[in-house]
Order: sequence, then C-alpha cells, then structure tokens
Amino acid sequence: MPRDDKPTLGIGMVGYAFMGRVHSQAWRSVSAFFDLPVTPTMAALCGRSKERTTAAAADLGWAAVETDWRDLIRRDDVDIVDICTPGDSHAEIAIAALAAGKHVLCEKPLANTVAEAEAMSEAARAAAAKGVYAMVAFNYRRVPAVALARRWVEEGRLGELRHVRAQYLQDWIVDPEFPLVWRLQRDQAGSGALGDIGAHIIDTAEFITGDVIAGVSALTETFVKERPLAEASAGLVGDSRTSERGTVDVDDAALFIGRMRGGALASFEATRFAAGRKNSLRIEINGSKGSLAFDFEAMNELWFHDHTLSGAEAGFRRILVTEPEHPYAAAWWPPGHGLGYEHTFTHEAKDFIEAVAAGVAPSPSFEDGLRVQRVLAAVETSAADESRWTVVS
Amino acid sequence: MPRDDKPTLGIGMVGYAFMGRVHSQAWRSVSAFFDLPVTPTMAALCGRSKERTTAAAADLGWAAVETDWRDLIRRDDVDIVDICTPGDSHAEIAIAALAAGKHVLCEKPLANTVAEAEAMSEAARAAAAKGVYAMVAFNYRRVPAVALARRWVEEGRLGELRHVRAQYLQDWIVDPEFPLVWRLQRDQAGSGALGDIGAHIIDTAEFITGDVIAGVSALTETFVKERPLAEASAGLVGDSRTSERGTVDVDDAALFIGRMRGGALASFEATRFAAGRKNSLRIEINGSKGSLAFDFEAMNELWFHDHTLSGAEAGFRRILVTEPEHPYAAAWWPPGHGLGYEHTFTHEAKDFIEAVAAGVAPSPSFEDGLRVQRVLAAVETSAADESRWTVVS
Amino acid sequence: MPRDDKPTLGIGMVGYAFMGRVHSQAWRSVSAFFDLPVTPTMAALCGRSKERTTAAAADLGWAAVETDWRDLIRRDDVDIVDICTPGDSHAEIAIAALAAGKHVLCEKPLANTVAEAEAMSEAARAAAAKGVYAMVAFNYRRVPAVALARRWVEEGRLGELRHVRAQYLQDWIVDPEFPLVWRLQRDQAGSGALGDIGAHIIDTAEFITGDVIAGVSALTETFVKERPLAEASAGLVGDSRTSERGTVDVDDAALFIGRMRGGALASFEATRFAAGRKNSLRIEINGSKGSLAFDFEAMNELWFHDHTLSGAEAGFRRILVTEPEHPYAAAWWPPGHGLGYEHTFTHEAKDFIEAVAAGVAPSPSFEDGLRVQRVLAAVETSAADESRWTVVS
Amino acid sequence: MPRDDKPTLGIGMVGYAFMGRVHSQAWRSVSAFFDLPVTPTMAALCGRSKERTTAAAADLGWAAVETDWRDLIRRDDVDIVDICTPGDSHAEIAIAALAAGKHVLCEKPLANTVAEAEAMSEAARAAAAKGVYAMVAFNYRRVPAVALARRWVEEGRLGELRHVRAQYLQDWIVDPEFPLVWRLQRDQAGSGALGDIGAHIIDTAEFITGDVIAGVSALTETFVKERPLAEASAGLVGDSRTSERGTVDVDDAALFIGRMRGGALASFEATRFAAGRKNSLRIEINGSKGSLAFDFEAMNELWFHDHTLSGAEAGFRRILVTEPEHPYAAAWWPPGHGLGYEHTFTHEAKDFIEAVAAGVAPSPSFEDGLRVQRVLAAVETSAADESRWTVVS
Repeated sequence: MPRDDKPTLGIGMVGYAFMGRVHSQAWRSVSAFFDLPVTPTMAALCGRSKERTTAAAADLGWAAVETDWRDLIRRDDVDIVDICTPGDSHAEIAIAALAAGKHVLCEKPLANTVAEAEAMSEAARAAAAKGVYAMVAFNYRRVPAVALARRWVEEGRLGELRHVRAQYLQDWIVDPEFPLVWRLQRDQAGSGALGDIGAHIIDTAEFITGDVIAGVSALTETFVKERPLAEASAGLVGDSRTSERGTVDVDDAALFIGRMRGGALASFEATRFAAGRKNSLRIEINGSKGSLAFDFEAMNELWFHDHTLSGAEAGFRRILVTEPEHPYAAAWWPPGHGLGYEHTFTHEAKDFIEAVAAGVAPSPSFEDGLRVQRVLAAVETSAADESRWTVVS
Repeated sequence: MPRDDKPTLGIGMVGYAFMGRVHSQAWRSVSAFFDLPVTPTMAALCGRSKERTTAAAADLGWAAVETDWRDLIRRDDVDIVDICTPGDSHAEIAIAALAAGKHVLCEKPLANTVAEAEAMSEAARAAAAKGVYAMVAFNYRRVPAVALARRWVEEGRLGELRHVRAQYLQDWIVDPEFPLVWRLQRDQAGSGALGDIGAHIIDTAEFITGDVIAGVSALTETFVKERPLAEASAGLVGDSRTSERGTVDVDDAALFIGRMRGGALASFEATRFAAGRKNSLRIEINGSKGSLAFDFEAMNELWFHDHTLSGAEAGFRRILVTEPEHPYAAAWWPPGHGLGYEHTFTHEAKDFIEAVAAGVAPSPSFEDGLRVQRVLAAVETSAADESRWTVVS
Repeated sequence: MPRDDKPTLGIGMVGYAFMGRVHSQAWRSVSAFFDLPVTPTMAALCGRSKERTTAAAADLGWAAVETDWRDLIRRDDVDIVDICTPGDSHAEIAIAALAAGKHVLCEKPLANTVAEAEAMSEAARAAAAKGVYAMVAFNYRRVPAVALARRWVEEGRLGELRHVRAQYLQDWIVDPEFPLVWRLQRDQAGSGALGDIGAHIIDTAEFITGDVIAGVSALTETFVKERPLAEASAGLVGDSRTSERGTVDVDDAALFIGRMRGGALASFEATRFAAGRKNSLRIEINGSKGSLAFDFEAMNELWFHDHTLSGAEAGFRRILVTEPEHPYAAAWWPPGHGLGYEHTFTHEAKDFIEAVAAGVAPSPSFEDGLRVQRVLAAVETSAADESRWTVVS
Repeated sequence: MPRDDKPTLGIGMVGYAFMGRVHSQAWRSVSAFFDLPVTPTMAALCGRSKERTTAAAADLGWAAVETDWRDLIRRDDVDIVDICTPGDSHAEIAIAALAAGKHVLCEKPLANTVAEAEAMSEAARAAAAKGVYAMVAFNYRRVPAVALARRWVEEGRLGELRHVRAQYLQDWIVDPEFPLVWRLQRDQAGSGALGDIGAHIIDTAEFITGDVIAGVSALTETFVKERPLAEASAGLVGDSRTSERGTVDVDDAALFIGRMRGGALASFEATRFAAGRKNSLRIEINGSKGSLAFDFEAMNELWFHDHTLSGAEAGFRRILVTEPEHPYAAAWWPPGHGLGYEHTFTHEAKDFIEAVAAGVAPSPSFEDGLRVQRVLAAVETSAADESRWTVVS
C-alpha cells in the first residue's frame, strides 16, 4: 500500500558490505518512524559482481541492480547516490554523481587524501549552487546522546571548554594471525585506525564542541608489521610460505594531543589493539560549568556533571537519552527502551532527506569532511616528523 | 526486486499502537538479516478506525487494511495472525484465528484471566495437532544477553541455583496527574504493573533458570487511587470536576517472594513508581558455581561471575553480548555495535517463522503463557489474603 | 605528649576478634580526626584466655587486660564498656555494665532473642535516667553516604516514599565444605544471615526512611544443612566420619517483603549464598520526588535521582560522598580520597563520645536495637508459618 | 601496655599538613595490622610554629616537638625522618638526614628540579652503602589494586604491552576565584598539576608496566593566569585591587604522549580542571593477552579483561581487591569491606619499616624518584619547544 501523498526520492547505493547493509536498513526503516516530506525508495544497488550484487539486493530490499557505478548515476530513478565503498573510490564517484545532478551521501573518511577531499569539497560547493547536496556520513553525530551533548555545549551549559578527551578503542586485530584485510592496506583504506576510527573522534569532538582542532602533536605505530594475506587465511592460497604474508602499511594505533582553536586542550587516541574494548568511542568534555562523558559501548547513556550545583549534590549523572525531549528519541519507543548502532544511520537518512527536500545544505558537509581530512594529514605529518607540532591547515 | 526463490507467509496484524509499531519493524527487517526459509510479507493491518488504520498501514508498510479482525483472519493472504491488542481481546482473536488455521503470535500477557489463558492453551494444543502453531510474545527472551544467560544455566555453568532476584522497575506514573490510560484499567489490562511488566520477569526468570515458580507470597499496592480520565487530561472533557477523575483499579506495584521448584529462593518486584528507573528489567541469578546479572537498561551487557575461578581473580565481568558466538549476534554488526529494544522483536519474528516453516512448535508456547498467568493469579490471591503462601496451580 | 586540656573516658572492651579489631582502630584514631570534648583512652581489653588477650592487647594498643568481664566493669579506669562478643552474651554483660554505671556500646544484633533485647532496653532506660547511656553499634548508619541519604529523606527531597529495596548479599559460605563456625550455630549467633546481616538492612532502611516496618511476610532457607565442624576442618579432630559434621541450625538466606508504617512497600533479602557479592549491602529508596541508591561495595558513592528535574536532564547521579559538606567527611581527606569500612566505626565512636560527653542519649538506642529484634522475630515467625503476614509487635 | 618483645624505630616527621596528617595515621596504625619486626614510635614532629606544631602533635599523637628540622635529625630517638613538606625543601632535609644516618621517607615529587633529585639520589646511594635507606612516597603503588596489577603484568598475564593510558583528573581549581595557594606557585611546588599529580601517574605507569618512558611530546596550559592571593581570599588583605591577585606560574594541566622503552604507546594527562573528577587517577593497560583498568575513585576495584578466554565469555571483570590472596588485604577486613585512601600510607609505612629492618633497599628508591623527575623535566622541555619529541635522559 504505497503512500500516494508524498513524492519519492530514489536512492542508488554503491557497495553492500558492512556499511551497505546498515545504510539499507536505514533507508528501509526511516519512513516508518519519521514523518518525512518525501519518501526515499530503494531504487538500485551497485556492486562489481552481478551475481553477488543481485543476491545482496534481494536480501537488503533493493529494486534493481547495477554493476558499474557510472550506470547507477545515469539512472532516472536515482536521485541520491549513497557511497558505501572504501575510501579510494569516494572522490571519483562523488564528483561524478554531483556533476550528474545527484545528491550524494558519502561514507567517511571523505577520501584517502587531502587533495581528493579538496576536489570533492569543491564539487560539492559547485553542486550546492544548483540545489544538489552532499553530506559525509559521520553517523556518530546522530547518536542521540552525542546530539544532546552538542545541544548542551551550544546552550553554554558547560561554560568555557577546557578539555576534550577522546578515544576510539577496538581490539579486532590484537591477534597477529588476523588477516591482511583491506582496512589494513594503505592503497584502499588510506590509513589504519587513524582514518577509520580516528576520523570519527575528530569529527565527534569538533561537532560537540562546535570548535576545530588548531594543531596537533602525534605518534603512530604498527605493532604487527606482517599478517597473513586475507585469501591465505581463508584457505584459498597454496602452501608457499613466502607468498602468504603481506606487509601492514597502515597504522595500528594513532595518538595525538592538540589544541582547539577556542583554547581547550585535547587528547585523542585511536587503536585496534585495546584488548577488551570492542567499539569504545569515548569522549569526555570538561568545561568551567560542567562536564559530559560518553562511551558508545553504552550508547543510550550520556553522563553529565553539573558544576553549578553545590558540591554536596553534584556528580556525574547517567542520563538515559531515550526521553521524548531528547534528539530523535520521540520517534522511537518509550523511555528506557534503548536504540542500537543502526539507528544512528536511520537518523542520518532522516536528516539528509529533510535537508535535501527543504533545499538546505545537509550537515556534516564535504567541507566538514575535508577539515577532518586535514587533521588526519596533520597527524600523519607530525607522527612522521618526531611528533613536532603541526598546524592544521 | 522480490525474492523469487523462497515461499512467503503473509502476516495479518491486529493493533498498531506501541506493540504494533515494533512488530511491524520486525516483520519489515527480519529477512534482511536472517536467512529465513520463508519470507514473511506484511499482508494486512487491522484496526477499528478505517482512517487511522489506513494511515498507520501506510506509515508502517502494510499492504492492506481491515477494520474487523474476523475479516482479517478470513483473508487468504494471511497465514499468520499477530495480535498486538490489549489483553482483553487476546483470547477471542487467538482462538478464532487458530480455528481458522492461522498461526498465531500473541502479545503478552497471554490473557487477562487464567480461564481465558486455559482456553487459549487448549486451542493451541488442538491446532498444533494440525500443524498450526501459536506463540506468546515474551520478547525479552530474545535479548541476546538473556538468551546467553539461558544457555549458560542450561550448560550448568552456574551449578545449583540458589537465588533469583528479579525486578522490573519503571516510573511513568509517578506523577499523580498522569491520566487513567487503558493500562491502568482492570477491564482492559487485567492488572497493572503485575500483568504488564511482572509477567515479563516471571517469564524471564523461568526461562533462564529452566525452572518454574512453585509458590508465592505477595503484596500489591495502588499508591495513587484516582487519576484524571485520559480524555480529560487530553482536554477533551468539560469542566465538571467530578467527572474528570476515575478510579485506578489495578496495582501500581507488586512484590512477591517465592520458591522455584528446584529449590532456589526467588524475589520479584514490578513497579511503575521507581522514580528514575525507566525500563529496568533486572535479574540476577546466584548459583553454586557462578552468578549472572542483567539490566535491560544496558541490554547489550551480561554480567557473569565465575565462582570456579580463584578468589584472587574472580569478579563480575561485563560481557558485551555482541560477539558472533552469541545468540542472534552474528546476523548484525561487528562486536561492540550494540542492538536496541526493537531487535528483540526481530529475533522473535525470526524464531517464530523458522519454527512454523519447520513444522515445530515455537517457544514460548501458549502453555508457557498460561503458566505465567497462573503465577499472576497466585500473586493476586496471596496479596488479597494477607500474603499467605499460595501454591501456583 | 598527652593532651592535658581535655578529660578522658576509659574504654573497656570485651572481645578482640573481627569486631574487637575494628573497634580498637576506631578508639585509637578518633581523637586525631575529630575534636572531641573528651579523649577516649584504651584502658582495658577483656577476653577469656589470658595469653591470647594479652597478645591482642599489645597488638591493638590496650593498656591492660582482664579475663572476666565482671572484673572489667569493676575497674575504675573504665567508663565505657564496648561489647564485641557474639550475641548470646550481650544481655548479661550490657545489663551488668549499665547497672555498674558504665556507658555501653554494644555490637549488633542487640541480642539473640526479643526477651533479652527487652531486658536490655529496659536496663538502658533505667540507666539513662541516671545519665548512663547505651548505644547499639549499627555502624552502617555512619557511612557518610548513608548519613547523607538520611539527611535528604529528612529534608523531604525524596517526597513521599514508595519503595524500599534492601539487600545484603555475601558469598562466604557458598562452598559446602566451609566449616560450621559460630555464626552458623543458633545457640551463639541467634540466627544466620537474618540476624547477622539482615539486621543491618532493617536498621539501615528504618534509619534512612525515618519510618518503621509495620509487618512482614517471609521465607528463610538453609541450603547446606550439614557442614564440617570448625575444629574438624582445622584438623583438630579424629577420623570418625560421624563426628566430623554438624547440623547448620540457622538460616543461610532470609527474604521478606513488608510495609513501612508510612505506606511504602519494602523488600529485603539477606544471604550468604550470592556468589560474587562480597559485602553488598544495597539499598534503594524511591519517592515521589526522587530516588537514592547505595551499595556498600562502593561505599563512597551515593546515587541520587532528582525527579523534580526535567526528564531531559534527570538521571541517577554518582555523588562521591567525600566533600566537606558531607557527613563526617570534613574530618578526613580532600574530595575523592575515599574512606573505608573501618571509618564507619570511627564515626560511631565519635558520635557516641560526643553524646555521652554532652549527656544526651546516643543513637541508635537499645530501643532501636529492640525494634530491629522484633522485626527479626516477625520474620522468623512468618517464615515458620507459611509466610503469613506478621505484624511487627 | 607497650610491646616489650620488639625493638622500636623512632619516627621524626617534618610537616603536619595534609601529608603529615595521613602519615601520622599510618604510623599510628601500622603495627596493629601488620606483624612488623620493629615497632615504629611517633617520636617527634617538626614545624616552624611552636604553637601550631604543639597542637598538631597533640592531635596526631607525636611525643615531642621541634621547630627546626636540623634539631629533629639530631635527636637520638629519631631513626627515620619522614619529610612531608613542599618540594622546595626536600633536597636539603633529605640529604642532611641521610648524612646524619637517618633513614628517610620523602614525599613526592622527590624534588623541584632534576638537579636536586640527582643530588638526593646520590646521597641515597652513599647512605645505602652504610645501611641507611631512602624511599620516595609514591603511595599509589600501595593501593592493593595497583599492586595486583603490577603482579599480573610481571607474571605475563597481559602478554606484550601495547598501550598505557593514564590520567589524573581533579577539579579543585576550576573556580577562577580559588586562591593562589602554594601548590600554584612555582618556587614552592616546582610545577603545577604536572609535578603534583602527573608525577603519580608517571610512577604508577612505570611501576605497573615494569618499563620506563623513553620519550615524550607534551602540551601544558595555565587556563587561569591570575588568582586571588591566598591571604587575600582569606580576608586578611586590604582593598587594594592590584595587590590582591597574583600570577599563577605553574601549569593547570599537562598532556603528553610517549613511548615506553618496551614498545608500548602511552598517553598521560594531569589536570586540575576536569570538572566533576575529584581524585580520578585512572590507568588502563592493554596487552596482547589482556587488559587492566583502574580508577582511584573506586580504589577497591581492579578491572581485568582476560583476552585468552573465548570471545563469547570475555569481558572486563570487576575484581574487588579485598580477598586474602590480594596484596596487603589479608591484614584488614573480610572480603568486600573496602579500604580507603589512608591505607595506602599504612602499606607504605609497613613496606618501609620491613625493608629498613631487613637491611634491604626500600622501593621506590630515590633513583626511581629521580627518573620520574626526568620525565617531568622532559615534559616541560617538550611543552616549551612546540611539543617536539624529547627523550627522557
């Protein structure tokens, strides 16, 4: 029983792995929970293998299939191109799609290099002038607790900001026998923990504070320098010992300290070697009037210390960010009935659709993505040069 | 792009309020994440108001609309009837649907009285003989952490069970001006906190322990005896003070202690007056070899104390139940990328569909629902008779 | 370098086991942290064995030794008798000491029977008329967090009380080979978990709420009915299998639900079989304006939910009860530098000395201890008679 | 009743403020809980003001008083000099005391400059040759949880170390009107948060890992550059606006990243501007086989993730470090009856006395203190030179 009272916007998605699956769930669900001005439809899915893409389309609910992204962006039923591929293809696809008059939602990090990101940002600026919009998919901005943190900082409830303490801790490659997947290869992934998860905490920190990182001093490390080739580990390669291992040419971990332009001190750590931490995107902000703390492993909670209360009754309070007054929460369930990882993408889809429908630029923009890219580049520059202070250009 | 390789089962759902919305999301999503032998289709939605039901069907993705459940169960494209109405209509609809050869998924509590539940259980038994199946929707069994708890108790990792400590704490009616909604009226809801949330902890306790409650001693209380009529509070009623308030004839809170048949002591508390607790379904089980603790407000965590470890290194450990080895988890996201409330229903839909497709009885059965109903009845009997010990019949 | 500017009060202590050791530390330390009007001196320690008592006195810092408590209470240098023996000797010593004009601090539970407790309470009343005071040592009242909870309830910050949820969970006898120590024998201990730790949560609940338990419905259980004799387990007994085990004639666990006179519902559980819980005295109070939660395993924290805040910013907050405004805290260290178990006794000593010096009755009184005893008796009566409702006399 | 069976060691303590008070409590209590080979006696307290020192000695239990530390170290009844003054006087007193044949326990940081620390370390080495010992008072090593962490790292339970993440967060000077106390003045304190609390996390990190910091890149900041003079804030100064404020010439916060010699990456942050964090000395260590996490605000807990367990059952476990098998714990109370801040000093006193009595060098040595001093110096050097990488000399 299709909704006949609303226009539709056709989505064309490139890639159907982890990101593609969760984006599909967002497109599939968003209209059921949010009263959108237009209804997104799952027009076509694009992947290199016809067979695999067809199977994925059936599972994920896409109406058609393409095997070349150039064909996808030519389709009349595609209004929005959703890019869920590794970073090395973002620039080419996004720029072409925008040029073709398609709105673009692009996974993060925006690109693998600053140059690519600049070109993308430039293309987005040109497209926006024609009412065609681009957004980079920093989904953690759409965790209700993170959006609430942003709201409160903006309202001045933390006062003058003094400290940002951000970590993104995972442990999926602690085992040295874990294979050399694409995320561990520079040509596809651009960098390692830095670009994959470090990008998220950079964006989250800048988003919540409403400030930007002015400069950094950094260290990176690759603890395990060789790993079994992904195919080898899957048993698809012969017995030649030499050919079985490849070099890890990205960072396993990146640490940096920095200054926010507004004067706060900041510390960042992104690692895939924090045994026992599964997806711990943590951030704490200390201000003159209060503090906020968040850990994605308990994503429905925001911890708030109100420093304007008397010492006798102040303390970090655990706010379940599931009340109707909280960002996004009214669309879902009663208080205390928490959300999960996927809902950050549903919120992203909602915000993107609303912006496009209203003809306003969605956020975070490619410009925001470029800024994160510049921080990533500054981190790599600093780490390569004895941690020297590096201004974010 | 429909899946042409799998048969379908048409769902007909009655009710589209809170439960209807979350069931819809489950039916909409389940096939994208689980490789089911048959594909559920959202055939028809049933509600009393044509207009409202049509709008809901559009929002929630149902293909057709009915305004009488009798018509719904007559539809050829409906193979499964999903009952999401208040408890007073469960028996009639479920019995008729089973008689009509439709599989039934029925929200909890199974019914408002033991007599109704008995009739339903009887009908389910008769239908099962013909390959028509019924299940009661105790969704919390499908929290991965709860399912893991069950698995470990079954494997003997807790040893002999000594204690069950279960609480379901909410706070949505602490304010005496909160209106007299249907959940606060005996004729529709059957009971108050007891049947609504007490039923969940009874089922969860019996599910995890694999044991049943033998007898109870109980207290119930209604703290706020009169409340504004729901319409009044919505501003739809005139100024007559007398007509504006109604009597709360259900319990606000129910406490009971009991014995499990296997010898463990158990304590239960269900309340809507625990200020600050939003949806805290908590359960702790202590055994001779270990303990488990769970709180739905942090639903991705299971706390496990292994008492067979040396004292020097034992302690409650926080297990993020998001690993591929954990129940249901492999279908979703990487470790640490948690699930939310709605996914318990997706898991329920998956298990129900798989059972029906395989021609085996799904669990929990109406028999299980009846047993919970008997515990609820025993609690009310005990509470009404000075807390005297009451054997669960 | 003795303080010559203050009078002294000589302490005579009976018993030097666990309680004697911690009381000694309190007497030794209290004057260094609190500016008391009189200085307690550690005059004499009393125990049955001359040799062991002498060694203990040396370790613990007592100036003299007695082997008969009758001699102790005759000493001129003893002004206060501190009773740290098992419950079976409390009544005799306390009554005699009060008759001899000595102030009495008596460990809990006040006695092993209501009759004894009544006699003690009577003796305390008579003594008070002559300016001789008695106090029962419910030390948990002197946890700063518990005292703060009491203060806030008294100030009305929780509004009307709805729920008391109290548990005292330990696990030291989970192993069935743990020996039959005196705490597991009725003639010395009076009861098991009930009197030992259940007494603490009864008192704590009544203290914080300022209310009393009106009636109860109870269950008790002895999970392990026979245990190695304590001597046997220590290797002091021969090889006769029969003689090696003794009957556990006290409860391992006690559960009860009840009503506070003011209308709140209450649930209590005391057990030594909660594997993994070491000394978890937990209490949560829910009121119409807020809630408080405490767990002794994190004794420096009080969790407070302010229900008068907007839903968007309310949540349980973790207050570190170490600020100068908090009860007792100014005497100690800077904020965040927590206290431990022993300090509850230092606070007890301080309050007792101050009351005695001021000529006012210390609290909790023997009357308070008697009331707890009556609750314990009601629990045992109810548990012995099918959990029937039993009014606390 | 003095112990006549053991020799005594007389303590002479310099300073009676915060550190002096807690050291006094340690000396007063240590013999009651630990069976020491010699008994420390509280021989004499030294302070500048005769009157105040006499009052403090009475309160804290010291037998005599001196007003010049040179007189103190000349006393025959003083065998150990315990230095509890600000850092600017450590070197002079410690060196003189060691030269006079007195054992020395010196508060941290060892000194205000590397040069002083070198001289002290040299003096300690010379004294040790004559059986006279020196120790620096990094008390947090004696938190049972920290000592347990060290034990497990030493036993290899964490495998190869990858990350050290250490923070010491306080908030006592967030208010810009907090006065300019001595800890905020370079001439007395040497540095700000860095030397006061940063020194602790440096030592704790090196202690637990058994490794040393090889080099650092650092940032420091003084957020509030002027503060009321301490006397002014106390109302002792006139109305001249100019004279009322003084310059804060130490850091408010210090951040640095570094590498451990063994290859782990490390990040450190010391701040007095983390609103809501009272005394949060936190450290997390990630290794190839497991992780440990600690926060002093919950000092009785150590969190351990055993990465050798299957993913399905691994998770951070909360170990209450109060079991008899745990460091120091057997001397105190039953499991779950936690310790407080002061007990770290009691443990320090115990270890120091035992080492001195046994004629072995106590730990941490002045050499250890010097190494911490060198890290502090490297941090200041790096921070002053654009965060450039600075090798710890």
